[in-house]
Amino acid sequence: MNAIYERRERVRFGHCDPAGIVFYPRYFEMLNALVEDWISEGLGISYAELLGPRRVGLPTASLNTDFKRISRMGDELVQRVAITRLGRTSLTLHVEFAGSDGLRVAFDQVLVCTSLQTHRPQEFPADLRAALTTAQEAQGVNPS
Amino acid sequence: MNAIYERRERVRFGHCDPAGIVFYPRYFEMLNALVEDWISEGLGISYAELLGPRRVGLPTASLNTDFKRISRMGDELVQRVAITRLGRTSLTLHVEFAGSDGLRVAFDQVLVCTSLQTHRPQEFPADLRAALTTAQEAQGVNPS
Amino acid sequence: MNAIYERRERVRFGHCDPAGIVFYPRYFEMLNALVEDWISEGLGISYAELLGPRRVGLPTASLNTDFKRISRMGDELVQRVAITRLGRTSLTLHVEFAGSDGLRVAFDQVLVCTSLQTHRPQEFPADLRAALTTAQEAQGVNPS
Amino acid sequence: MNAIYERRERVRFGHCDPAGIVFYPRYFEMLNALVEDWISEGLGISYAELLGPRRVGLPTASLNTDFKRISRMGDELVQRVAITRLGRTSLTLHVEFAGSDGLRVAFDQVLVCTSLQTHRPQEFPADLRAALTTAQEAQGVNPS
Repeated sequence: MNAIYERRERVRFGHCDPAGIVFYPRYFEMLNALVEDWISEGLGISYAELLGPRRVGLPTASLNTDFKRISRMGDELVQRVAITRLGRTSLTLHVEFAGSDGLRVAFDQVLVCTSLQTHRPQEFPADLRAALTTAQEAQGVNPS
Repeated sequence: MNAIYERRERVRFGHCDPAGIVFYPRYFEMLNALVEDWISEGLGISYAELLGPRRVGLPTASLNTDFKRISRMGDELVQRVAITRLGRTSLTLHVEFAGSDGLRVAFDQVLVCTSLQTHRPQEFPADLRAALTTAQEAQGVNPS
Repeated sequence: MNAIYERRERVRFGHCDPAGIVFYPRYFEMLNALVEDWISEGLGISYAELLGPRRVGLPTASLNTDFKRISRMGDELVQRVAITRLGRTSLTLHVEFAGSDGLRVAFDQVLVCTSLQTHRPQEFPADLRAALTTAQEAQGVNPS
Repeated sequence: MNAIYERRERVRFGHCDPAGIVFYPRYFEMLNALVEDWISEGLGISYAELLGPRRVGLPTASLNTDFKRISRMGDELVQRVAITRLGRTSLTLHVEFAGSDGLRVAFDQVLVCTSLQTHRPQEFPADLRAALTTAQEAQGVNPS
């Protein structure tokens, strides 16, 4: 995949269940934190300001997940984000978490831009759209 | 849908985010708890014994989720489970969470039966298979 | 203890860690849910309305916890709430979770009534104060 | 306080509740992660190996928490760990989370070293005891 953002996260004790592997709802907490960090640090648009004072929501409309291999406490996951589609009011991401043995989990997530007053879809604010567009263009020409 | 198990759950303060609506990773905690209750109470097979002393795992292989409408603190969700497909080592469920305004979230989840020693797929144990088969047959003739 | 509210909760797979016992942050999620249910169902004051439209907060100011015995997946916990002290703007609770072998966890929690506009302390609203006073009186004369 | 370990963590969207502030059970997830990182990175003893293959547990026996000021989404917390007391089978920590306006949360936590076979107390393994002793000595002479 052509990733536009990458970071690493270690699987914690608190992520794991009595089977000794990641309890799958914790993967979605990791996914949400990754998207938050990508927007704040990768795109340079403060997620806390966006969802706080600016009252712009980014709820998930659909999320398809394949769990390919198990992850255990202490494993390091390489987490990568790619833009699949950028619409007027929605954004589709492909995200992969990989371990030393290959792909662990793959997500296809559709996020919708909403107003937190009305919870209705609205166009992306100009700064976020510009940052997403730049990221998408950079992704195309920098295969990674 | 022809549900084989139904229960109700109230959306809690701790499920919700600063936007005042359910933080989506919490829906997956609800889903996991629902499947646990269905197996223990609906099918009569103790989930705690299954995953504890019996060392039978039921990890999720894939999970497709559509988020249709938002849920707020205090909302009551009707949660319904249906069997879509029962295989030799895997089980596909369709699960819906509905509010007073209709469908809120729909999940299609593939669970795989594994050994918790090896984390490899294995056939469902006989009692679980029998209970699943009975449930699937009852579902077919009792449209709900 | 003279409890004014009691309910039972089964320890879930998702509450437990790779050691097979409850991961302690999950006990605090259980505690928060218990207090929520006590206020809504025991006192008859909707917690969702209180913290939602009424903008009354009940944050925790201090919380002392003793973990006496471990809890495992599938265990049933009897959860009991008692009022230790009712002040003008604060409430002290003693909460116990017990299993078949006796006390598992004991909490002493100070909750403060706040405005969610300002996050500053304020007096309890009249209906909540009346319900708390009635509960405290009933607790005194009905040793349980 | 004389801290022996310090790191920073940003308050995330997923840590916060509909009141827009940290939902207190999330502080305990942060605390557990901090202790995990301190042991792995600060002391150089892999927490994942300790609780996994080495079967050494570090459950919490008591935990007293003061919540001094609220934290909001986007706030940066400085998290500091100090050893208060090092016993043969137990360890008492004082932990503080501070924001730009001062102390937010203070924890006094007693951890017990156990066998994960029996869940009974046992002496700290030699490498962990040595690392804790060194840390405690360094803490005394390096006031911070």
